[in-house]
Amino acid sequence: MTYRMPAEWTEHEGCLMAWPVRPDLWGDTLAEVKREYAAVARAIAEFEPVTMVAPPGHGDEARAHCGTGTGTGTGITVVELPTDDSWFRDSAPIFVLDGDGRRAGVDFRFNAWGRKHSPWDADDRISGLLLEHLGTPAIRSEMILEGGAITVDGEGTLITTEQCLLHPNRNPEMTRQEIEAELKARLGVTTIVWLPYGGALDTETDGHVDGVCAFVAPGKVVVQLPADPDHPDYVRMRANRAVLEHSTDAQGRPFEIVDLPQAAFVEVDGREVEVGYLNFYLANGGVVVPVADHPEDAAALAVLAAAYPDRKVVGVRARVIAYGGGGIHCITQQIPAATQATATQADATQTTATPSAAARA
Amino acid sequence: MTYRMPAEWTEHEGCLMAWPVRPDLWGDTLAEVKREYAAVARAIAEFEPVTMVAPPGHGDEARAHCGTGTGTGTGITVVELPTDDSWFRDSAPIFVLDGDGRRAGVDFRFNAWGRKHSPWDADDRISGLLLEHLGTPAIRSEMILEGGAITVDGEGTLITTEQCLLHPNRNPEMTRQEIEAELKARLGVTTIVWLPYGGALDTETDGHVDGVCAFVAPGKVVVQLPADPDHPDYVRMRANRAVLEHSTDAQGRPFEIVDLPQAAFVEVDGREVEVGYLNFYLANGGVVVPVADHPEDAAALAVLAAAYPDRKVVGVRARVIAYGGGGIHCITQQIPAATQATATQADATQTTATPSAAARA
Repeated sequence: MTYRMPAEWTEHEGCLMAWPVRPDLWGDTLAEVKREYAAVARAIAEFEPVTMVAPPGHGDEARAHCGTGTGTGTGITVVELPTDDSWFRDSAPIFVLDGDGRRAGVDFRFNAWGRKHSPWDADDRISGLLLEHLGTPAIRSEMILEGGAITVDGEGTLITTEQCLLHPNRNPEMTRQEIEAELKARLGVTTIVWLPYGGALDTETDGHVDGVCAFVAPGKVVVQLPADPDHPDYVRMRANRAVLEHSTDAQGRPFEIVDLPQAAFVEVDGREVEVGYLNFYLANGGVVVPVADHPEDAAALAVLAAAYPDRKVVGVRARVIAYGGGGIHCITQQIPAATQATATQADATQTTATPSAAARA
Repeated sequence: MTYRMPAEWTEHEGCLMAWPVRPDLWGDTLAEVKREYAAVARAIAEFEPVTMVAPPGHGDEARAHCGTGTGTGTGITVVELPTDDSWFRDSAPIFVLDGDGRRAGVDFRFNAWGRKHSPWDADDRISGLLLEHLGTPAIRSEMILEGGAITVDGEGTLITTEQCLLHPNRNPEMTRQEIEAELKARLGVTTIVWLPYGGALDTETDGHVDGVCAFVAPGKVVVQLPADPDHPDYVRMRANRAVLEHSTDAQGRPFEIVDLPQAAFVEVDGREVEVGYLNFYLANGGVVVPVADHPEDAAALAVLAAAYPDRKVVGVRARVIAYGGGGIHCITQQIPAATQATATQADATQTTATPSAAARA
């Protein structure tokens, strides 16, 4: 079977999130960030079911915050599994589909964005537990990769940043060519576009692409492009844009580019943080966008509403999530809908046992 | 004294070159590259005196190839000193002037472009010997830096590439901020423009800026910008150009950019090599440009003639020099003319003994 990572706009079975509990990350903002996570979950549950994973002992707290969902027949289910941190874009599996619509999950290694927050062993194991919980076959990769470091069009193209994927704190023993080969084998892509930069202020992830650009549709990309010449990314994002302007995708198409020029700097717990509008989540029929109670919010939402005319665009306050180093995309992971029944457990075991064959067959 | 590296167009006392003798680098092309080095030296000697440094025992051979110069009262002087390789842009001192026009030479550490060619101990020592030979005070820096990795306007601006200066094979123990601080302290610059990329094919230097862009005048830069979309640098150099377009120099000026779109691929000893027109040397009143006996030569020389209207532009065949990994800029190092007598030997010794004070006083 050849597996391919579908684009985020492909129909979802639901969304995975993890409940935030880490005191050394959130400090005095922990109570507030729980309210923000719950609001994000409720907003997504209007579009698709949400599974909220809470560490053992925190399930009731998560349920109390999130409620049971208010959407059209959907809701929020809280499940207790051990986690360290709460950024499922990066620690949860990256789901792939084969040509018959059967789903598997790629379990890349996770080292807390280059060993930045210890411990990370539970987050390194969570992909396997989630796949077991979902009854979805696991494909192991020995490469360290966070989901926020890549974006795909589902038609063979993957965009990433050199700053992150070539950072010596991730896979220093792998060459660029070896990293490309592993991405191609595991995610079914054929063309990799390397942007030079992540965000200058993004010191947590070393430049995840989900702070830089996102696919809107095949051949169409929305790019963070701060209008203010004093913004630390003013020059960097223009260099990224130049790379996109002069690249083509896996189908040979040039990229149509939508600029997202807004930036929102706000103070959270005495620190200035940027709430990045680019770090949104595509739910079924929706775009759930971080906002900051900032004058730029409305213009950013308008850019995204024009880019996604067939989706409802919803802003959710994510100031404290930004304080923790990310946005709504960072704390979510879509489960694409399988169009055929998931493989049996016997298949799953076999797939797990021969990951290379499974990924390349 | 505050020292500042003058721009390459500042009047030179002369030019330093090193005679090529390394069989493991040149192989079957060694005889031919000696003819090319000699032709470069003779072309430069039409504009300014050349000192050709040959390893002990190779002086007569260098003299036989170079002759004694045919220019207007200038010539080529051959001096025997121990060297490993023959790329004085990178292993020779980087000369600086103080506010009174007194000259010193910064002796950065050299490790053969990230330990690529062993041994390199003689090339690491050659800056000290050259400064002693010239009677010019030495300022030691413990940072590894090659002259080809930087270009300056002499008015406070330095351009370099992240690919080279942040490469882990150079100064892995230094942060970007520490590297910036050392460049500022030693070379008297205040603004550093970081381009993301060197040339994709430049595997010898990991992306020296002297294959990417060069200052034409304060506020004006010529940029290699291959016209062919299939050129491996097509996208990369457009990203570099975007950085320059949106940056300002130390005086707050935007950069006027001259594009050099030509590329010359030729076969040398069974290998395809690119002869880079950007890797030229500014002699007194002249521009000495690598050419390849290639149809693109004339157009590239015309771009440079228009960029430097007050200088005579001369093409010198440098196909085998390109095979070795560089161009005419790589094999030369200008000695800016001191407008005051060089410091006495006593001063020189004192300066050497307290390099930090000398560089920062």
